[in-house]
Parts: sequence; structure tokens; C-alpha cells
Amino acid sequence: MKILSNRGQAMPPSPIRKLAPFADQAKERGLHVYHLNIGQPDIKTPETFLQSIKNFNQPVLAYGPSAGLPSLRKKLAEYYNRFDINVTYENILVTTGGSEAIIFAMMAICDPGDEIIVPEPFYTNYNGFAVEAGVKIVPITSKIEDDFQLPPIESIAEKITDRTRGILICNPNNPTGYVYSRQELENLREIVLKHDLFLLSDEVYREFVYDGLTHTSILQLEGIEDRTIMMDSVSKRYSACGARIGMIVSKNQEVIEACLRFGQARLCPPTIEQIGTEAGIDTPQEYLDEVIAEYNERRNVMVNMLRQMPGVVAPMPKGAFYLVVKLPVDDADKFAQWLLTDFNVDNETVMIAPANGFYSTPGLGKDEVRIAYVLNVDDIKKSMNILARGLQAYPGRTI
Amino acid sequence: MKILSNRGQAMPPSPIRKLAPFADQAKERGLHVYHLNIGQPDIKTPETFLQSIKNFNQPVLAYGPSAGLPSLRKKLAEYYNRFDINVTYENILVTTGGSEAIIFAMMAICDPGDEIIVPEPFYTNYNGFAVEAGVKIVPITSKIEDDFQLPPIESIAEKITDRTRGILICNPNNPTGYVYSRQELENLREIVLKHDLFLLSDEVYREFVYDGLTHTSILQLEGIEDRTIMMDSVSKRYSACGARIGMIVSKNQEVIEACLRFGQARLCPPTIEQIGTEAGIDTPQEYLDEVIAEYNERRNVMVNMLRQMPGVVAPMPKGAFYLVVKLPVDDADKFAQWLLTDFNVDNETVMIAPANGFYSTPGLGKDEVRIAYVLNVDDIKKSMNILARGLQAYPGRTI
Repeated sequence: MKILSNRGQAMPPSPIRKLAPFADQAKERGLHVYHLNIGQPDIKTPETFLQSIKNFNQPVLAYGPSAGLPSLRKKLAEYYNRFDINVTYENILVTTGGSEAIIFAMMAICDPGDEIIVPEPFYTNYNGFAVEAGVKIVPITSKIEDDFQLPPIESIAEKITDRTRGILICNPNNPTGYVYSRQELENLREIVLKHDLFLLSDEVYREFVYDGLTHTSILQLEGIEDRTIMMDSVSKRYSACGARIGMIVSKNQEVIEACLRFGQARLCPPTIEQIGTEAGIDTPQEYLDEVIAEYNERRNVMVNMLRQMPGVVAPMPKGAFYLVVKLPVDDADKFAQWLLTDFNVDNETVMIAPANGFYSTPGLGKDEVRIAYVLNVDDIKKSMNILARGLQAYPGRTI
Repeated sequence: MKILSNRGQAMPPSPIRKLAPFADQAKERGLHVYHLNIGQPDIKTPETFLQSIKNFNQPVLAYGPSAGLPSLRKKLAEYYNRFDINVTYENILVTTGGSEAIIFAMMAICDPGDEIIVPEPFYTNYNGFAVEAGVKIVPITSKIEDDFQLPPIESIAEKITDRTRGILICNPNNPTGYVYSRQELENLREIVLKHDLFLLSDEVYREFVYDGLTHTSILQLEGIEDRTIMMDSVSKRYSACGARIGMIVSKNQEVIEACLRFGQARLCPPTIEQIGTEAGIDTPQEYLDEVIAEYNERRNVMVNMLRQMPGVVAPMPKGAFYLVVKLPVDDADKFAQWLLTDFNVDNETVMIAPANGFYSTPGLGKDEVRIAYVLNVDDIKKSMNILARGLQAYPGRTI
């Protein structure tokens, strides 16, 4: 009997979801599970966004243009201009989520067998898109002891082959929360110019930066406008993960046109959610100010509590709403599962994401986990207490 | 400077859209253009569908499950059961449009370089998905003089190589309107069993059949349940093209699980449009009865008028809302363009889709066009009059 393709078999399971059956069983046993494993914020979607959907009154829910609604593309250009990103609506394609933006960009510049260099740990679904597109992800390792900053530029240069087509970063970073500095981006600028590569940046957390930092977009780098491709999404910015609205932004019109041809094959992004997004961009600045202040507080509470746990290494994340921490355990995979199967505090436990799935190099991240601070401060305090007591009780603890 | 990938360059332009700039210019000159080139129905989306979207009152527009909302999958199973298609919700994945269903199915069974046999003319975006997935489409030609029925089974067998992974049909067919008979499907059943292939069927027009015909799904074929994959969509059924909600249905759970892994990489289909779809399935049967009666009348009016035009060959379509007709012209591409650039009747003209883009074999379809009967009867009468007069006036006419 016919078997699946290699591609159909090779798709990696998601490290965020692989423990889901254990979480389900825990819930069946009556436990409350705090979900720190996923990036689903509890923040309310802006009223402007939701109201515009309720106001939809066209008689036919018709196809939109493959590039996205022109009014949305124009509004997005205004949005980027506010951040000194000098683009016009012709540089912007609306995609079905940031996910589609990434796979379109990969396919536009890579043929099967081509390579893209990515600092690890990285957003695990890059692996999935690479399998789909036949692209090889070549990792360069960023280290917890360096706060996950960009590895030395020489270590990147070493990985470049004649199949290398680009370097992909996520900034602010999922899973580490690291925010690349202007100098690190300038270093990347040098290397893509020198080796004739594309520079891709996933900036879906672009507004989530703390401690007064300013986020630099790759679209602000000078002299490489023809080789930068930025991917974005409204999922996190407007807490609208279910909308599936993302975007590709590039001043290289050949790239935009190639991505548009991929977009034409799938006809259009969802119409109603585009209308919601367009209204969402008009959300008053206070909304995001409050959201970012809230995440900032959650981050501070979580990191302070983590740093009080013996043997835990917790770099302070500068952006996004994740961090990767090192735990004093034999195997973070087993520990995360044990929290769901063998542990609770007053019938409550926590779910965290083992970090090994965010590394491409085998063996790395074995004692690390990704934690998302997407719950309110009270729940974060409770879940950090559970984690601390779990670390004391876990049979495989190393201290 | 870095160039795009071969894949990025190879995406074919859409034959439905390539004349769009000429249509835009015609409109700028003040002409009214009847759009018979695209499958965007003018039918109203059911009120149940739209009302459920207005009623959305969750505070967070959150990610849904990658497989689709469980309540929607269960409702879809009930829907298929009504048509004697014996599936459960575990056999169903919700996708972002029928487009995603097709590319997921292709990727699940094919590696780059593998082949899928498709009767031509075929839905042109199959080419795009094949380029994206690195799959080679091998055409078998169905002919206008045979009403576009399935080519002889021997001509299919001839095309099978050691890279062939499956046969893909569209039933009812876009662009021809042909509906495959039970016997034709049984013949396909034989050949996929004999050569150990998958059988894929795009059934997005499944309810649009006329003249009392019954549509047979490949999921009703016995003894090949482990090798049939059906793709579906609500775009046409509920005139909700902008919703981007489709589905993959298969009793081969390995296929479903591979497609789910692709689905996990893109997180989920759009949430609000899934809610609309779930409500849409409860649309009273009268809605679709009326819609189908309306299309039936449009079809009859259009085909009768086409058959009165000298030199036009117009097979009666049995399903969907398209037909492919042969015109007495030197080149349908030039004629379709001429209608937009050099012709009008009382400041009105028509846009039709040259059929060569629906064929994979070079040179075929040169004097054929696809016409969609997605306008009301009055507009169809007007546009057929314009077409008739255009054929008389066109300098490249062949009779």
C-alpha cells in the first residue's frame, strides 16, 4: 500500500503541543493547568477590531484581492511610517497569518535544497515551513549565558555555503525574548552584503519591547533595501491570533511580485478578518501602552520569582512575551511531563514547553524550557510557586 | 545581486487575471464590463452565516485548534452523512480554503519531483500549488468533442511512471462543468488499485449538479477508502468565497495526521469564518434549492444563446457554474483582449477567460474560453448579445 511522502512523514511534532495529551489527562483528573506553554495572550482584542466585524453588512462575503484589501495595505503603510519605516502600500502584501508570510518568503528565495541560516533556539514552526518548502535550516547557536544575543558574526560566516540564500531572525525573539541591537543588525547588514544574501526578519512582536528600548526593523537598514524581507502579523499586537492576518513587507518588488503569485494561487486572505484588522490599526495608542505595561509587570514578577529558585538561570527578556530558562533538572522534557502527570499543588499545576524543540542542533536545550508570560500577575505568581515546589520535589532534580 | 528562486520565478500568472489590466482600462474609458471570467457568484451569503459572525461576542479572538473547531468538524460530518458519505469528524480537517486543502494533500503524498495525473483542462491554480510543492502535473487531455468526459482509462495508464503518486480530478469540473459518472469513478477506482495510487477529488461544486443528476463522491467508492482524499470548500456552496474555509476529508488517518502536522505549522484556520461556516451548514435546504434553480436557468439561457452563434461549440455543462466553449476565432487570447480594448455595444463589453491557461499541454485550448454563469439572467442575456456581436465584428474571426 501507498505510503505518505517523506515530506508528509518528516513534519516535526510541535514542542508546544506534544505534551497536550498529558495536559488533557490532568484536566480529566480534575486539575487546573496554568498554560505557560503557548503564546495565546489573555489580553482582550480591541473593541474597534471586534466592532468592525459586527458591522459587516455586505450581502456577499466575496473574494478580496490576492494582495489584500487596498485600504488595509494603505493603512498598514501609514502604520509603518509612524515607526520611521519608509514603505508604501505597494511594498506590502497581506497574508493569511504571519505563518504564510514566512513560507511565501522562503519559497520566493529558495528552491528545494537551498539553505537559510537561523539563530537557535528559534520559533519551532520555522522547521515545519522548511520541511514544506524543502529548505534546509542551518542553525547558529545563541547561548543562554550570553542572554541569547546574536552569535559572533564569524560563526555565521562559517556556515555560508553556495546553497545559502539568506539569514532569518526573529526580532523581538520568540522563544528567548531577546531584542537585537542596532549594532547587531548592522553586523548582519555587512554579512548579507558581503555574501549576497537576503535578510529576513520576523517582527511580529515589534511593539513588545521593554525598559525603554527602541526596536529596529531590518527595513531601517540602509543600502540593503533590495535584500530585506520583513514578516509581520496582527495576532499578538491586537490579541487577534484567530484572525490569521499577517503581512510581507519588502522594497524588493521582485520579491513582492513572486509572493503575490503564490498569493494568487490561494486567492485571498480572509475578508472579514482583514476588515477587523483595518479597524484595529485605529485602536488608540493607550490600548497598546496598557498592554505593554501589563506584559512588563508580568515579566518582572516572573523573572524575579524564577531567579529566586535555586539553580534556575533566567536571562531578563527585553521583548516579546517569552523567555527561555535553564532549570536544575536532568531532562526538561521529562520534567514538563512530570508536572502534568505526577505533581500538583492544591489541585493545580503548570504546563511549560521543553526548549529542545526550539533547537535544531541535537542535544541542545535539554535542561531549558520556554515560558510565556501570557497570564495575569496573580496567575503568574501562583504558577511560579507551583514551578518552584515542583523543582524541589522532582526526582530528577540536579541540585 | 541575489535573484529569486526558480520556484519564485516559475509561478504561472493566472489566466483568469492576466487580462485584468485591459478590463481596468476599459472601465477607465467608461465602459461597463460583464465579468464572466471569474467564479465569484453574485448570490447572497446565507443570513445564518452572516448573522453568526455579527453575534461573535468572545472577548479574545483566539487561536482555534489546528484541525479546525471540533463543533464545526462534527457538523461537517453530519453534513456529509446526509449525502451517504460515511465519515466521522476524525476524518475531517478544516483548512484555510479549498486551496490549502489541495496543497496539503499534494504535500502529504508527494515529494519534490513526484507526479500527479490530472485531466486537462483543469483548474489553473493546480499549477501554482504544484510549483509550490515541487510536484509535476502530468495532463491527460479531455476533449470538447467528447463533452470533456474522462479520457479512456488506457490513456491514463500510459502516463503512470514510478514517480506517479496519484490522480486528481475536479468533480463537478471547473472549468468544463462536466460531472463524472459513477462508471468513470469505478474505472478510476480500478486503476488506482492496480497501480497503487492515491485518488484525489476536488468536490467544491458537489451540490451544483443539474438535470436530476446525482453527484458521486470518491468517498463513496468501495475498497479504496485508504487511498481517497477529498477536498471541499464552503466558498461556492454558501457564496462565501472570502471566508477561506475548506476541508480535507479522508478515511486514511495517516493522511489526515500528515495534513494536521502541516496545519499545526500554520496554527489554525480563521476563527470567525469557521463560526460563520458552522452556522451556514444549518442554512435551510430551500436556500440551496433556489440557488441551484437559479444557476440552472442561467446555464440554459447561456448555452442556448451560445449555440445560436455560428461556429460556436458549447457542450451542455452538467454541474458547477462554468463551461468551456470553442469559438470561431484565430486566438481566444487575442479575442478576449480585443473585447476589452477594441469593442463595445452601447458602452458595454464582456470579459471571458482564455482557456489555454487551463491546459498543461502547450497549444491546446487556443480557440476555447471558459465562461462562468455567475451573473443574473438579464446580464447573461446582455453579455451573450455582446459576445455574439463581437464574434461577428472580430477581425480574426475564422468563419
